[in-house]
Amino acid sequence: MTDRPETKVTEKAAVVLLSGGLDSATAMAVAREEGYTTYALSFRYGQRHDVELAAAGRVAQALGAARHVIADIDLRVFGGSALTADIAVPHHDRVEDLTQDIPITYVPARNTIFLSFALAWAETLEAEDIFIGVNALDYSGYPDCRPEYIAAYEQMANLATKAGVGGHQHLRIHTPLIDLTKAQIIGLGRSLGVDFGLTHSCYDPDTDGFACGTCDSCLLRRKGFADLGLEDPAPVRQH
Amino acid sequence: MTDRPETKVTEKAAVVLLSGGLDSATAMAVAREEGYTTYALSFRYGQRHDVELAAAGRVAQALGAARHVIADIDLRVFGGSALTADIAVPHHDRVEDLTQDIPITYVPARNTIFLSFALAWAETLEAEDIFIGVNALDYSGYPDCRPEYIAAYEQMANLATKAGVGGHQHLRIHTPLIDLTKAQIIGLGRSLGVDFGLTHSCYDPDTDGFACGTCDSCLLRRKGFADLGLEDPAPVRQH
Repeated sequence: MTDRPETKVTEKAAVVLLSGGLDSATAMAVAREEGYTTYALSFRYGQRHDVELAAAGRVAQALGAARHVIADIDLRVFGGSALTADIAVPHHDRVEDLTQDIPITYVPARNTIFLSFALAWAETLEAEDIFIGVNALDYSGYPDCRPEYIAAYEQMANLATKAGVGGHQHLRIHTPLIDLTKAQIIGLGRSLGVDFGLTHSCYDPDTDGFACGTCDSCLLRRKGFADLGLEDPAPVRQH
Repeated sequence: MTDRPETKVTEKAAVVLLSGGLDSATAMAVAREEGYTTYALSFRYGQRHDVELAAAGRVAQALGAARHVIADIDLRVFGGSALTADIAVPHHDRVEDLTQDIPITYVPARNTIFLSFALAWAETLEAEDIFIGVNALDYSGYPDCRPEYIAAYEQMANLATKAGVGGHQHLRIHTPLIDLTKAQIIGLGRSLGVDFGLTHSCYDPDTDGFACGTCDSCLLRRKGFADLGLEDPAPVRQH
Protein backbone atom coordinates (compact mmCIF):
# COMPACT_ATOMS: atom_id res chain seq x y z
CA MET A 1 0.00 0.00 0.00
CA THR A 2 3.04 2.28 0.30
CA ASP A 3 2.92 3.39 -3.32
CA ARG A 4 -0.62 4.71 -3.03
CA PRO A 5 -1.23 8.41 -2.57
CA GLU A 6 -2.82 9.31 0.76
CA THR A 7 -6.12 10.28 -0.84
CA LYS A 8 -6.62 6.75 -2.12
CA VAL A 9 -5.74 5.04 1.18
CA THR A 10 -8.30 6.95 3.19
CA GLU A 11 -11.19 6.91 0.77
CA LYS A 12 -13.70 4.15 0.24
CA ALA A 13 -13.78 4.04 -3.54
CA ALA A 14 -16.23 2.36 -5.89
CA VAL A 15 -16.35 2.10 -9.66
CA VAL A 16 -19.88 2.75 -10.91
CA LEU A 17 -21.02 1.72 -14.39
CA LEU A 18 -22.90 4.75 -15.63
CA SER A 19 -24.82 4.59 -18.89
CA GLY A 20 -26.62 7.86 -18.40
CA GLY A 21 -29.93 6.06 -17.97
CA LEU A 22 -32.34 6.07 -15.07
CA ASP A 23 -31.10 2.83 -13.51
CA SER A 24 -27.37 3.53 -13.45
CA ALA A 25 -27.99 7.06 -12.12
CA THR A 26 -29.91 5.55 -9.22
CA ALA A 27 -27.18 2.94 -8.63
CA MET A 28 -24.65 5.75 -8.46
CA ALA A 29 -26.77 7.65 -5.96
CA VAL A 30 -26.93 4.51 -3.80
CA ALA A 31 -23.13 4.20 -3.88
CA ARG A 32 -22.79 7.82 -2.80
CA GLU A 33 -25.38 7.33 -0.05
CA GLU A 34 -23.36 4.35 1.24
CA GLY A 35 -20.31 6.59 1.62
CA TYR A 36 -18.31 5.65 -1.46
CA THR A 37 -16.23 8.06 -3.46
CA THR A 38 -17.51 7.23 -6.93
CA TYR A 39 -15.53 6.67 -10.11
CA ALA A 40 -18.00 6.71 -12.97
CA LEU A 41 -17.32 4.59 -16.04
CA SER A 42 -19.12 4.92 -19.37
CA PHE A 43 -18.45 3.43 -22.78
CA ARG A 44 -18.41 4.64 -26.34
CA TYR A 45 -19.10 1.24 -27.85
CA GLY A 46 -20.33 1.96 -31.33
CA GLN A 47 -23.73 3.26 -30.29
CA ARG A 48 -25.56 4.96 -33.09
CA HIS A 49 -25.95 8.00 -30.87
CA ASP A 50 -23.89 9.81 -28.25
CA VAL A 51 -26.92 11.21 -26.43
CA GLU A 52 -26.55 8.74 -23.57
CA LEU A 53 -22.89 9.70 -23.04
CA ALA A 54 -23.88 13.33 -22.70
CA ALA A 55 -26.45 12.23 -20.10
CA ALA A 56 -23.80 10.19 -18.28
CA GLY A 57 -21.59 13.27 -18.05
CA ARG A 58 -24.43 15.34 -16.60
CA VAL A 59 -25.29 12.65 -14.05
CA ALA A 60 -21.66 12.10 -13.03
CA GLN A 61 -21.27 15.79 -12.35
CA ALA A 62 -24.60 16.17 -10.56
CA LEU A 63 -23.86 13.22 -8.27
CA GLY A 64 -20.31 14.30 -7.51
CA ALA A 65 -18.17 11.62 -9.19
CA ALA A 66 -14.47 11.94 -8.34
CA ARG A 67 -13.78 11.12 -11.96
CA HIS A 68 -15.77 10.17 -15.04
CA VAL A 69 -14.01 8.05 -17.67
CA ILE A 70 -15.46 7.22 -21.07
CA ALA A 71 -13.70 4.14 -22.41
CA ASP A 72 -13.64 3.59 -26.15
CA ILE A 73 -14.48 0.11 -27.28
CA ASP A 74 -15.93 -0.94 -30.58
CA LEU A 75 -18.33 -3.85 -30.52
CA ARG A 76 -19.36 -3.16 -34.11
CA VAL A 77 -16.50 -5.35 -35.34
CA PHE A 78 -18.59 -8.33 -34.22
CA GLY A 79 -22.08 -7.10 -35.22
CA GLY A 80 -25.15 -8.73 -33.72
CA SER A 81 -27.41 -6.11 -32.09
CA ALA A 82 -29.72 -3.23 -32.87
CA LEU A 83 -27.78 -0.95 -30.56
CA THR A 84 -24.60 -1.20 -32.57
CA ALA A 85 -25.54 -2.67 -35.96
CA ASP A 86 -27.78 -1.36 -38.69
CA ILE A 87 -31.01 -3.03 -37.56
CA ALA A 88 -34.18 -1.06 -36.80
CA VAL A 89 -35.06 -0.60 -33.12
CA PRO A 90 -38.57 -2.02 -32.53
CA HIS A 91 -41.31 0.40 -31.46
CA HIS A 92 -44.59 -0.35 -29.68
CA ASP A 93 -47.68 1.61 -28.67
CA ARG A 94 -48.13 0.00 -25.26
CA VAL A 95 -45.90 -1.61 -22.64
CA GLU A 96 -48.09 -4.74 -22.84
CA ASP A 97 -46.83 -5.30 -26.38
CA LEU A 98 -43.27 -5.95 -25.23
CA THR A 99 -42.19 -9.54 -25.67
CA GLN A 100 -40.43 -11.58 -23.01
CA ASP A 101 -37.94 -12.90 -25.54
CA ILE A 102 -34.40 -11.68 -25.57
CA PRO A 103 -34.71 -8.19 -27.07
CA ILE A 104 -33.15 -7.41 -30.43
CA THR A 105 -31.33 -4.61 -28.61
CA TYR A 106 -29.33 -7.22 -26.69
CA VAL A 107 -25.61 -6.63 -27.18
CA PRO A 108 -23.55 -9.84 -26.97
CA ALA A 109 -21.59 -10.05 -23.74
CA ARG A 110 -22.09 -6.36 -23.07
CA ASN A 111 -22.26 -6.43 -19.28
CA THR A 112 -19.40 -8.94 -19.23
CA ILE A 113 -17.25 -6.51 -21.18
CA PHE A 114 -18.38 -3.50 -19.14
CA LEU A 115 -17.72 -5.25 -15.82
CA SER A 116 -14.30 -6.33 -17.06
CA PHE A 117 -13.29 -2.73 -17.68
CA ALA A 118 -14.70 -1.80 -14.28
CA LEU A 119 -12.61 -4.58 -12.77
CA ALA A 120 -9.47 -3.22 -14.43
CA TRP A 121 -10.14 0.25 -13.06
CA ALA A 122 -11.03 -1.05 -9.60
CA GLU A 123 -7.77 -2.96 -9.47
CA THR A 124 -5.83 0.14 -10.51
CA LEU A 125 -7.60 2.22 -7.83
CA GLU A 126 -7.26 -0.62 -5.30
CA ALA A 127 -11.02 -0.35 -4.93
CA GLU A 128 -13.03 -3.37 -3.81
CA ASP A 129 -16.45 -2.29 -4.98
CA ILE A 130 -18.23 -2.09 -8.32
CA PHE A 131 -21.81 -0.87 -8.71
CA ILE A 132 -23.98 -1.86 -11.67
CA GLY A 133 -27.61 -0.90 -12.13
CA VAL A 134 -28.84 -4.21 -13.57
CA ASN A 135 -32.38 -5.19 -12.93
CA ALA A 136 -33.78 -8.69 -13.16
CA LEU A 137 -37.45 -7.75 -13.35
CA ASP A 138 -37.90 -5.22 -16.10
CA TYR A 139 -35.15 -6.69 -18.26
CA SER A 140 -35.71 -10.38 -17.76
CA GLY A 141 -34.79 -10.96 -21.39
CA TYR A 142 -31.14 -10.08 -20.81
CA PRO A 143 -29.18 -13.08 -19.53
CA ASP A 144 -26.42 -10.87 -18.15
CA CYS A 145 -28.80 -9.08 -15.77
CA ARG A 146 -29.63 -12.19 -13.71
CA PRO A 147 -28.47 -12.58 -10.09
CA GLU A 148 -26.77 -15.92 -10.83
CA TYR A 149 -24.76 -14.27 -13.57
CA ILE A 150 -23.62 -11.48 -11.24
CA ALA A 151 -22.65 -14.00 -8.56
CA ALA A 152 -20.60 -15.99 -11.07
CA TYR A 153 -18.95 -12.82 -12.29
CA GLU A 154 -17.96 -11.84 -8.75
CA GLN A 155 -16.46 -15.28 -8.13
CA MET A 156 -14.46 -15.09 -11.36
CA ALA A 157 -13.32 -11.54 -10.60
CA ASN A 158 -11.90 -12.56 -7.25
CA LEU A 159 -9.74 -15.14 -9.02
CA ALA A 160 -8.73 -12.75 -11.81
CA THR A 161 -6.96 -10.11 -9.82
CA LYS A 162 -3.73 -9.62 -7.90
CA ALA A 163 -5.82 -9.55 -4.76
CA GLY A 164 -6.92 -13.09 -5.52
CA VAL A 165 -3.30 -14.27 -5.12
CA GLY A 166 -3.02 -14.33 -1.36
CA GLY A 167 -4.30 -10.78 -0.95
CA HIS A 168 -6.90 -9.65 1.56
CA GLN A 169 -8.86 -7.62 -0.97
CA HIS A 170 -12.30 -8.96 -1.81
CA LEU A 171 -14.13 -7.61 -4.79
CA ARG A 172 -17.87 -7.11 -4.56
CA ILE A 173 -20.31 -6.46 -7.40
CA HIS A 174 -23.14 -4.37 -5.96
CA THR A 175 -26.53 -4.60 -7.69
CA PRO A 176 -28.77 -2.40 -5.55
CA LEU A 177 -31.59 -2.40 -8.13
CA ILE A 178 -31.66 -6.04 -9.09
CA ASP A 179 -34.97 -6.91 -7.40
CA LEU A 180 -36.74 -3.57 -7.81
CA THR A 181 -39.52 -2.64 -10.19
CA LYS A 182 -39.00 0.40 -12.39
CA ALA A 183 -41.35 2.38 -10.14
CA GLN A 184 -39.35 1.34 -7.06
CA ILE A 185 -36.10 2.39 -8.76
CA ILE A 186 -37.58 5.78 -9.58
CA GLY A 187 -38.83 6.15 -6.00
CA LEU A 188 -35.42 5.21 -4.62
CA GLY A 189 -33.62 7.60 -6.95
CA ARG A 190 -35.94 10.46 -6.03
CA SER A 191 -35.36 9.83 -2.32
CA LEU A 192 -31.61 10.09 -2.98
CA GLY A 193 -31.87 13.32 -4.94
CA VAL A 194 -31.44 12.01 -8.48
CA ASP A 195 -32.64 14.48 -11.10
CA PHE A 196 -34.13 12.13 -13.68
CA GLY A 197 -34.48 15.03 -16.08
CA LEU A 198 -30.71 14.64 -16.63
CA THR A 199 -30.95 10.97 -17.56
CA HIS A 200 -31.54 9.34 -20.92
CA SER A 201 -32.89 5.83 -21.54
CA CYS A 202 -34.14 5.79 -25.13
CA TYR A 203 -32.75 3.28 -27.64
CA ASP A 204 -33.70 5.49 -30.57
CA PRO A 205 -33.45 9.21 -29.78
CA ASP A 206 -33.61 11.91 -32.43
CA THR A 207 -30.63 14.10 -33.27
CA ASP A 208 -31.69 16.70 -30.71
CA GLY A 209 -31.59 14.11 -27.91
CA PHE A 210 -35.34 13.71 -27.54
CA ALA A 211 -36.52 10.23 -26.52
CA CYS A 212 -38.77 8.39 -28.99
CA GLY A 213 -41.34 7.38 -26.36
CA THR A 214 -42.12 4.06 -28.05
CA CYS A 215 -39.06 1.80 -27.78
CA ASP A 216 -38.93 -0.89 -25.07
CA SER A 217 -36.84 1.30 -22.79
CA CYS A 218 -39.04 4.37 -23.16
CA LEU A 219 -42.23 2.38 -22.52
CA LEU A 220 -40.86 0.74 -19.35
CA ARG A 221 -39.60 4.07 -18.11
CA ARG A 222 -42.88 5.88 -18.75
CA LYS A 223 -44.81 3.09 -17.04
CA GLY A 224 -42.52 3.41 -14.01
CA PHE A 225 -43.26 7.10 -13.61
CA ALA A 226 -46.97 6.52 -14.31
CA ASP A 227 -47.11 3.86 -11.57
CA LEU A 228 -46.00 6.57 -9.14
CA GLY A 229 -48.47 9.07 -10.57
CA LEU A 230 -45.62 11.08 -12.05
CA GLU A 231 -44.60 12.31 -15.45
CA ASP A 232 -41.17 11.50 -16.84
CA PRO A 233 -39.16 14.75 -16.64
CA ALA A 234 -36.95 13.74 -19.60
CA PRO A 235 -37.83 15.27 -22.98
CA VAL A 236 -39.83 13.02 -25.32
CA ARG A 237 -40.32 13.63 -29.03
CA GLN A 238 -43.80 14.88 -29.92
CA HIS A 239 -45.45 12.75 -32.61
CA MET B 1 -30.69 -21.28 -36.65
CA THR B 2 -32.65 -20.25 -39.76
CA ASP B 3 -31.04 -16.82 -39.93
CA ARG B 4 -27.52 -18.19 -40.14
CA PRO B 5 -25.77 -18.51 -43.46
CA GLU B 6 -25.02 -22.09 -44.47
CA THR B 7 -21.29 -21.67 -44.01
CA LYS B 8 -21.74 -20.95 -40.32
CA VAL B 9 -24.09 -23.88 -39.67
CA THR B 10 -21.76 -26.49 -41.11
CA GLU B 11 -18.48 -25.27 -39.70
CA LYS B 12 -17.09 -25.91 -36.26
CA ALA B 13 -15.92 -22.43 -35.36
CA ALA B 14 -13.65 -21.25 -32.57
CA VAL B 15 -12.51 -17.80 -31.51
CA VAL B 16 -8.78 -17.82 -30.79
CA LEU B 17 -7.09 -15.08 -28.78
CA LEU B 18 -3.97 -14.32 -30.79
CA SER B 19 -1.35 -11.98 -29.38
CA GLY B 20 1.26 -12.77 -31.98
CA GLY B 21 3.41 -14.50 -29.39
CA LEU B 22 4.69 -18.04 -29.28
CA ASP B 23 1.98 -19.35 -26.95
CA SER B 24 -1.10 -18.03 -28.75
CA ALA B 25 0.29 -19.16 -32.11
CA THR B 26 0.59 -22.68 -30.71
CA ALA B 27 -2.93 -22.51 -29.23
CA MET B 28 -4.23 -21.51 -32.66
CA ALA B 29 -2.41 -24.42 -34.29
CA VAL B 30 -4.04 -26.76 -31.76
CA ALA B 31 -7.48 -25.38 -32.61
CA ARG B 32 -6.82 -25.94 -36.30
CA GLU B 33 -5.54 -29.46 -35.62
CA GLU B 34 -8.75 -30.20 -33.74
CA GLY B 35 -10.78 -29.29 -36.81
CA TYR B 36 -11.96 -25.81 -35.91
CA THR B 37 -12.36 -23.00 -38.37
CA THR B 38 -10.48 -20.29 -36.49
CA TYR B 39 -11.48 -16.68 -35.91
CA ALA B 40 -8.41 -14.88 -34.62
CA LEU B 41 -8.85 -11.98 -32.22
CA SER B 42 -6.13 -9.47 -31.30
CA PHE B 43 -6.25 -6.20 -29.42
CA ARG B 44 -4.77 -2.76 -29.84
CA TYR B 45 -4.90 -1.91 -26.16
CA GLY B 46 -2.52 0.95 -25.73
CA GLN B 47 0.64 -1.09 -26.11
CA ARG B 48 3.71 1.03 -26.58
CA HIS B 49 4.48 -0.92 -29.74
CA ASP B 50 2.49 -2.47 -32.58
CA VAL B 51 5.12 -5.10 -33.35
CA GLU B 52 3.07 -7.85 -31.77
CA LEU B 53 0.00 -6.96 -33.86
CA ALA B 54 2.06 -7.30 -37.01
CA ALA B 55 3.17 -10.71 -35.75
CA ALA B 56 -0.46 -11.67 -35.01
CA GLY B 57 -1.39 -10.81 -38.60
CA ARG B 58 1.43 -12.99 -39.96
CA VAL B 59 0.47 -15.91 -37.72
CA ALA B 60 -3.26 -15.62 -38.53
CA GLN B 61 -2.48 -15.78 -42.23
CA ALA B 62 0.07 -18.58 -41.93
CA LEU B 63 -2.32 -20.73 -39.87
CA GLY B 64 -5.32 -20.09 -42.12
CA ALA B 65 -7.66 -18.02 -39.92
CA ALA B 66 -11.08 -17.49 -41.52
CA ARG B 67 -10.91 -13.93 -40.21
CA HIS B 68 -8.54 -11.85 -38.09
CA VAL B 69 -10.06 -8.98 -36.12
CA ILE B 70 -8.06 -6.40 -34.20
CA ALA B 71 -10.31 -4.80 -31.60
CA ASP B 72 -9.43 -1.36 -30.34
CA ILE B 73 -9.57 -0.91 -26.60
CA ASP B 74 -7.66 1.56 -24.51
CA LEU B 75 -6.57 0.39 -21.10
CA ARG B 76 -4.32 3.43 -20.69
CA VAL B 77 -7.26 5.38 -19.25
CA PHE B 78 -6.79 3.31 -16.08
CA GLY B 79 -2.98 3.15 -15.95
CA GLY B 80 -1.27 0.55 -13.82
CA SER B 81 1.15 -1.56 -15.91
CA ALA B 82 4.45 -1.41 -17.72
CA LEU B 83 2.84 -2.67 -20.92
CA THR B 84 0.54 0.29 -21.23
CA ALA B 85 1.87 3.01 -18.92
CA ASP B 86 5.15 4.88 -18.91
CA ILE B 87 7.06 2.54 -16.59
CA ALA B 88 10.33 0.87 -17.63
CA VAL B 89 10.15 -2.83 -18.54
CA PRO B 90 12.58 -4.76 -16.27
CA HIS B 91 15.54 -6.50 -17.92
CA HIS B 92 17.66 -9.38 -16.59
CA ASP B 93 20.78 -11.23 -17.70
CA ARG B 94 19.60 -14.71 -16.73
CA VAL B 95 16.27 -16.50 -16.47
CA GLU B 96 17.16 -17.39 -12.85
CA ASP B 97 16.91 -13.70 -11.98
CA LEU B 98 13.18 -13.58 -12.67
CA THR B 99 11.08 -13.12 -9.59
CA GLN B 100 7.99 -15.16 -8.76
CA ASP B 101 6.11 -12.04 -7.74
CA ILE B 102 3.40 -10.64 -9.94
CA PRO B 103 5.37 -9.03 -12.80
CA ILE B 104 5.27 -5.28 -13.31
CA THR B 105 4.10 -6.08 -16.83
CA TYR B 106 0.83 -7.38 -15.41
CA VAL B 107 -2.11 -5.57 -16.99
CA PRO B 108 -5.13 -5.32 -14.68
CA ALA B 109 -7.92 -7.65 -15.75
CA ARG B 110 -6.37 -8.12 -19.17
CA ASN B 111 -7.40 -11.71 -19.81
CA THR B 112 -10.83 -10.97 -18.35
CA ILE B 113 -11.28 -8.18 -20.88
CA PHE B 114 -9.83 -10.20 -23.76
CA LEU B 115 -12.03 -13.21 -22.99
CA SER B 116 -15.07 -10.94 -22.77
CA PHE B 117 -14.52 -9.70 -26.30
CA ALA B 118 -13.95 -13.28 -27.43
CA LEU B 119 -17.25 -14.19 -25.79
CA ALA B 120 -19.05 -11.41 -27.68
CA TRP B 121 -17.64 -12.59 -30.97
CA ALA B 122 -18.34 -16.25 -30.20
CA GLU B 123 -21.96 -15.40 -29.44
CA THR B 124 -22.25 -13.46 -32.69
CA LEU B 125 -20.76 -16.40 -34.64
CA GLU B 126 -22.83 -18.89 -32.62
CA ALA B 127 -19.52 -20.54 -31.82
CA GLU B 128 -19.14 -22.57 -28.63
CA ASP B 129 -15.37 -22.60 -28.36
CA ILE B 130 -12.72 -20.10 -27.32
CA PHE B 131 -9.00 -20.88 -27.31
CA ILE B 132 -6.55 -18.98 -25.12
CA GLY B 133 -2.84 -19.75 -24.80
CA VAL B 134 -2.50 -19.15 -21.07
CA ASN B 135 0.11 -21.09 -19.21
CA ALA B 136 0.17 -21.69 -15.48
CA LEU B 137 3.80 -22.74 -15.19
CA ASP B 138 5.96 -20.11 -16.83
CA TYR B 139 3.67 -17.26 -15.85
CA SER B 140 2.70 -18.24 -12.35
CA GLY B 141 2.75 -14.58 -11.37
CA TYR B 142 -0.34 -13.76 -13.41
CA PRO B 143 -3.54 -14.52 -11.47
CA ASP B 144 -5.61 -14.64 -14.65
CA CYS B 145 -3.59 -17.53 -16.08
CA ARG B 146 -4.58 -20.02 -13.35
CA PRO B 147 -6.83 -23.03 -14.09
CA GLU B 148 -9.28 -22.03 -11.33
CA TYR B 149 -9.66 -18.60 -12.92
CA ILE B 150 -10.39 -20.12 -16.34
CA ALA B 151 -12.95 -22.52 -14.82
CA ALA B 152 -14.71 -19.62 -13.08
CA TYR B 153 -14.68 -17.61 -16.29
CA GLU B 154 -16.27 -20.47 -18.22
CA GLN B 155 -19.00 -20.83 -15.60
CA MET B 156 -19.74 -17.10 -15.72
CA ALA B 157 -19.71 -17.08 -19.54
CA ASN B 158 -22.36 -19.79 -19.70
CA LEU B 159 -24.65 -17.61 -17.59
CA ALA B 160 -23.85 -14.44 -19.54
CA THR B 161 -25.08 -15.42 -22.95
CA LYS B 162 -28.33 -16.02 -24.76
CA ALA B 163 -27.39 -19.68 -24.86
CA GLY B 164 -27.43 -19.70 -21.07
CA VAL B 165 -31.16 -18.91 -21.13
CA GLY B 166 -32.54 -22.32 -21.91
CA GLY B 167 -30.32 -22.83 -24.93
CA HIS B 168 -28.38 -25.98 -25.75
CA GLN B 169 -25.18 -24.13 -26.53
CA HIS B 170 -22.37 -24.67 -24.06
CA LEU B 171 -19.37 -22.42 -24.15
CA ARG B 172 -15.95 -23.91 -23.51
CA ILE B 173 -12.70 -22.07 -22.81
CA HIS B 174 -9.89 -24.23 -24.20
CA THR B 175 -6.46 -23.83 -22.61
CA PRO B 176 -4.33 -26.42 -24.42
CA LEU B 177 -1.06 -25.02 -23.04
CA ILE B 178 -1.99 -24.50 -19.43
CA ASP B 179 0.14 -27.30 -17.96
CA LEU B 180 3.00 -27.24 -20.46
CA THR B 181 6.52 -25.91 -20.00
CA LYS B 182 7.78 -23.41 -22.53
CA ALA B 183 9.87 -26.14 -24.12
CA GLN B 184 6.82 -28.40 -24.40
CA ILE B 185 4.83 -25.58 -26.00
CA ILE B 186 7.58 -25.04 -28.56
CA GLY B 187 7.74 -28.76 -29.25
CA LEU B 188 3.98 -28.93 -29.69
CA GLY B 189 3.94 -25.91 -31.98
CA ARG B 190 6.73 -27.33 -34.13
CA SER B 191 4.87 -30.64 -34.48
CA LEU B 192 1.83 -28.69 -35.72
CA GLY B 193 3.79 -26.65 -38.24
CA VAL B 194 4.02 -23.32 -36.42
CA ASP B 195 6.74 -21.08 -37.82
CA PHE B 196 8.01 -19.42 -34.65
CA GLY B 197 10.05 -17.02 -36.75
CA LEU B 198 6.75 -15.23 -37.42
CA THR B 199 5.93 -14.80 -33.74
CA HIS B 200 6.89 -12.03 -31.35
CA SER B 201 7.01 -12.25 -27.54
CA CYS B 202 9.19 -9.35 -26.39
CA TYR B 203 7.83 -6.76 -23.96
CA ASP B 204 10.34 -4.15 -25.13
CA PRO B 205 11.18 -4.45 -28.83
CA ASP B 206 13.07 -1.80 -30.75
CA THR B 207 11.44 0.22 -33.50
CA ASP B 208 12.54 -2.29 -36.14
CA GLY B 209 10.70 -5.10 -34.34
CA PHE B 210 13.78 -6.80 -32.92
CA ALA B 211 13.28 -8.49 -29.53
CA CYS B 212 15.38 -7.15 -26.64
CA GLY B 213 16.51 -10.59 -25.48
CA THR B 214 16.54 -9.61 -21.79
CA CYS B 215 12.95 -8.98 -20.66
CA ASP B 216 11.07 -11.72 -18.75
CA SER B 217 9.30 -12.89 -21.87
CA CYS B 218 12.46 -13.04 -24.01
CA LEU B 219 14.37 -14.95 -21.33
CA LEU B 220 11.64 -17.56 -20.87
CA ARG B 221 11.32 -17.96 -24.60
CA ARG B 222 15.06 -18.37 -25.18
CA LYS B 223 15.28 -20.90 -22.35
CA GLY B 224 12.44 -22.89 -23.95
CA PHE B 225 14.29 -23.17 -27.24
CA ALA B 226 17.58 -23.88 -25.44
CA ASP B 227 15.95 -26.72 -23.49
CA LEU B 228 15.20 -28.35 -26.86
CA GLY B 229 18.71 -27.66 -28.14
CA LEU B 230 17.33 -25.09 -30.57
CA GLU B 231 17.89 -21.44 -31.32
CA ASP B 232 14.97 -19.02 -31.31
CA PRO B 233 14.26 -18.20 -34.97
CA ALA B 234 12.84 -14.76 -34.09
CA PRO B 235 15.17 -11.78 -34.56
CA VAL B 236 16.86 -10.52 -31.37
CA ARG B 237 18.64 -7.18 -31.03
CA GLN B 238 22.42 -7.46 -30.96
CA HIS B 239 23.94 -5.71 -27.94
